[in-house]
Amino acid sequence: MTTAGIALPEDPQDAPLSGELLQRFAAIVGDGNALTAPDDMAPYLAEPRDLFHGKAAAVLRPKTVEEVAAIVRLANETKTPLVPQGGNTGHVGGQSPRSPRQIVLSLARLDQIRDVDPIGRTISVDAGVVLQRVQEAAEAAGLLFPLSLGSEGSCQVGGNLASNAGGTGVLAYGNARDLCLGVEAVLASGEIFHGLRRLKKDNRGYDIRNLLVGSEGTLGIITGAVLKLYPRPAGREVAFVGAASPDDALKLLRIAERHAGGGLTGFEFMPRLGLDFVLRHIEGARDPMAEPHAWYVLVEVSSSRSGEDARDTMEALLADGFEASLVEDAAIAKSLSEAKAFWHMRESMSWAQKPEGGSIKHDVAVPVARVPDFLTAADAAVLKAIPGARICAFGHLGDGNVHYNISQPVGADKEDFLSHWREINGLVHAIVADMEGTFSAEHGIGLLKRDELSQTKSATEMDLMRAIKRIFDPNNILNPAKVVQI
Amino acid sequence: MTTAGIALPEDPQDAPLSGELLQRFAAIVGDGNALTAPDDMAPYLAEPRDLFHGKAAAVLRPKTVEEVAAIVRLANETKTPLVPQGGNTGHVGGQSPRSPRQIVLSLARLDQIRDVDPIGRTISVDAGVVLQRVQEAAEAAGLLFPLSLGSEGSCQVGGNLASNAGGTGVLAYGNARDLCLGVEAVLASGEIFHGLRRLKKDNRGYDIRNLLVGSEGTLGIITGAVLKLYPRPAGREVAFVGAASPDDALKLLRIAERHAGGGLTGFEFMPRLGLDFVLRHIEGARDPMAEPHAWYVLVEVSSSRSGEDARDTMEALLADGFEASLVEDAAIAKSLSEAKAFWHMRESMSWAQKPEGGSIKHDVAVPVARVPDFLTAADAAVLKAIPGARICAFGHLGDGNVHYNISQPVGADKEDFLSHWREINGLVHAIVADMEGTFSAEHGIGLLKRDELSQTKSATEMDLMRAIKRIFDPNNILNPAKVVQI
Repeated sequence: MTTAGIALPEDPQDAPLSGELLQRFAAIVGDGNALTAPDDMAPYLAEPRDLFHGKAAAVLRPKTVEEVAAIVRLANETKTPLVPQGGNTGHVGGQSPRSPRQIVLSLARLDQIRDVDPIGRTISVDAGVVLQRVQEAAEAAGLLFPLSLGSEGSCQVGGNLASNAGGTGVLAYGNARDLCLGVEAVLASGEIFHGLRRLKKDNRGYDIRNLLVGSEGTLGIITGAVLKLYPRPAGREVAFVGAASPDDALKLLRIAERHAGGGLTGFEFMPRLGLDFVLRHIEGARDPMAEPHAWYVLVEVSSSRSGEDARDTMEALLADGFEASLVEDAAIAKSLSEAKAFWHMRESMSWAQKPEGGSIKHDVAVPVARVPDFLTAADAAVLKAIPGARICAFGHLGDGNVHYNISQPVGADKEDFLSHWREINGLVHAIVADMEGTFSAEHGIGLLKRDELSQTKSATEMDLMRAIKRIFDPNNILNPAKVVQI
Repeated sequence: MTTAGIALPEDPQDAPLSGELLQRFAAIVGDGNALTAPDDMAPYLAEPRDLFHGKAAAVLRPKTVEEVAAIVRLANETKTPLVPQGGNTGHVGGQSPRSPRQIVLSLARLDQIRDVDPIGRTISVDAGVVLQRVQEAAEAAGLLFPLSLGSEGSCQVGGNLASNAGGTGVLAYGNARDLCLGVEAVLASGEIFHGLRRLKKDNRGYDIRNLLVGSEGTLGIITGAVLKLYPRPAGREVAFVGAASPDDALKLLRIAERHAGGGLTGFEFMPRLGLDFVLRHIEGARDPMAEPHAWYVLVEVSSSRSGEDARDTMEALLADGFEASLVEDAAIAKSLSEAKAFWHMRESMSWAQKPEGGSIKHDVAVPVARVPDFLTAADAAVLKAIPGARICAFGHLGDGNVHYNISQPVGADKEDFLSHWREINGLVHAIVADMEGTFSAEHGIGLLKRDELSQTKSATEMDLMRAIKRIFDPNNILNPAKVVQI
């Protein structure tokens, strides 16, 4: 199968689900929550990258963990494939159903915030709670939930954990895995894994929680979680910095770390081209600095003490950066709204590429010190393969995580450009592999990268993964053929 | 089997290893590194709590990962049980061999620091490197490795990871699991799991690393690891605080967090009784304050900025604590040596109990806010069962992790007192379970808590654990009968 020129794994040739079986599933959730009409299903079948054209027998919207368990039990008995879905914001097709036999199991109606513990600094939530609601609930308790993604207004906690989401807060607080103390999940048998622990330390046996987290719904369906909260910074400062090169940005990172320590809560980089796209296509965006610069860094500093303290730290690190000729120019946000505008420019980077035509995307990470070398090598390889390709490499410099996205040459044919997706992936990922990096830093495997995973991981590790999948899901009903094929 | 009155699982009734097979194992490491003489083996058979009297055919001391792999391969072929051992400091018997057929596989000679990356802030080490050497190597690079344990002068990285060690740094930096980016391990087949990643983000498939970490050598033998390093604080302050109750200590914790944020790097509590033991038995210990207090808190504040900054923060949080009548008295360490002396008192707490006779130990955690309630309930239950028992509950208040240790009544018979071990465990752990806590916060399961694990975990989770064990170790050669029995 190919979509827009990208070779993708074939859809399974399943027979449609029988009407009788569909009725039995529908009875679990009630008719209003078993969607079968094409228009009703459409939002669950489309996905943000428009790579996968979903097909499904139905979308079920259970309200309780017990309903989820009943659905899974019936699916297991009848070998009906289920595709768990949160906010449907994933980038690798993990949430997309693929045949008229598959059922989308939407967690959206499991949307209760169960409990906030301000002393233990934890929040317990249903899987379907939208990330932004967790952030807001934490804020209402005077605390911080630091997971932060471009899609935070629609992605859900269950999906965040199933895909071990990253984002801009990883630098200081870690990824979704690191922010999770406990999970509740429905296993393929329909049994409930009761792992809603709120303990920072618990060494009782094997780490099942971390197997479920990041397994993209293939080992169990996460229905609830206990997440860590953090003290809310008393002050926060955001600056846009112009820099000559990624190497200079990296040197600035070390200075920033020295000044801010754990208070360095953002260090994102992007090229002028990316800023140009944003200025061109994102409403309200404006250049923070008078002159253009080859590269930009968005720096965020938080202080547990005060706004003044954050300000002092930011000014001190920028002053050191100027003195070392690493900072060409810098604009410190003068208000909360300007700080938000700075972040919005960074977060719009991916969307701003859309109007520029086809974009071949990567989600790679290399050891932080290797980022400049990676960019040099990858740029050379890509431009050799596609002269005129417009490289927009941006992302989480502090994590070594680069969204190495390539917009088509001006005037090129989109389909033709995208037909080079796998070829360009191959070039870029080979460089990444040489540097002991990863071709999936934060977006996961899903369907898009499944075959690449099996081709590049050691046979030993793939065998372990398959054996684990078979233990957890012997009938292969949980998001089948995603991540790993058995 | 009972030791000092404590019921323990029976030793396996294995036939001794044949001389011929022993020769084949010895040939892998060379005669000098295959120990069989009782005196040579003795240090590997004894263990710190003196609960397990180890028995083994031999101790093998391989020098390389390849030698480890060759040993495991031969063991797998011949179904010879291996007991991996690091610094032999574990508290639950995980490192103790149990029959004349078992071979201790010591990782001590895999002791190379492979690489320090100051930009990516990682260190790659062999499993046999002593924790303190990692701390020192980090320091030499101007960085910090924050894992800190009482046994850091002898415990090894491999054991720290296999047992997911905790310690006093968890509050700010997390446990061993959180500090590990990648592991290399020899699997039961003798194959090497090459997982030495140094990436903060890597979402390629199931989280095998976290299965190996914390599995106590039952799923694979960790031979190397990549660990995270942190910026070295520019300043650090340590204070000993007198408080009236655990409840007041908990309220002080919240104030301390508000002032120090992520810079609160220690918050340990202990009762007067514990301090008395230390003053009585630990050389050089002296009371930091003029008057006695019912409870003590050791507070450590770190600053990325300066010593003055740390000092200001400490003084501000103590001032607030005084004002709120939570702090009865406080002594800020006036020098680095005094700061070390304060920490030494805390770290000697366990040892200082030894001369006081038998001690029934617990390693529990409850949600942080529940610690005072837990202590009230547990004290009542224990004193009802054993009037005159001297309860010395101390530990990591910020993590909700209490070493709820009970010294025998003055003048009681040690054996008789210790015969109540399981009974007292039962009382205390029932209270912990009611509070959704854990009976093993940081010490793991090993042999000591294996049966309690299987009795208290859900059948679903135990089944998953056994199935995982069978995948990783079908012949049951890796630390058999520890953690989980198959």
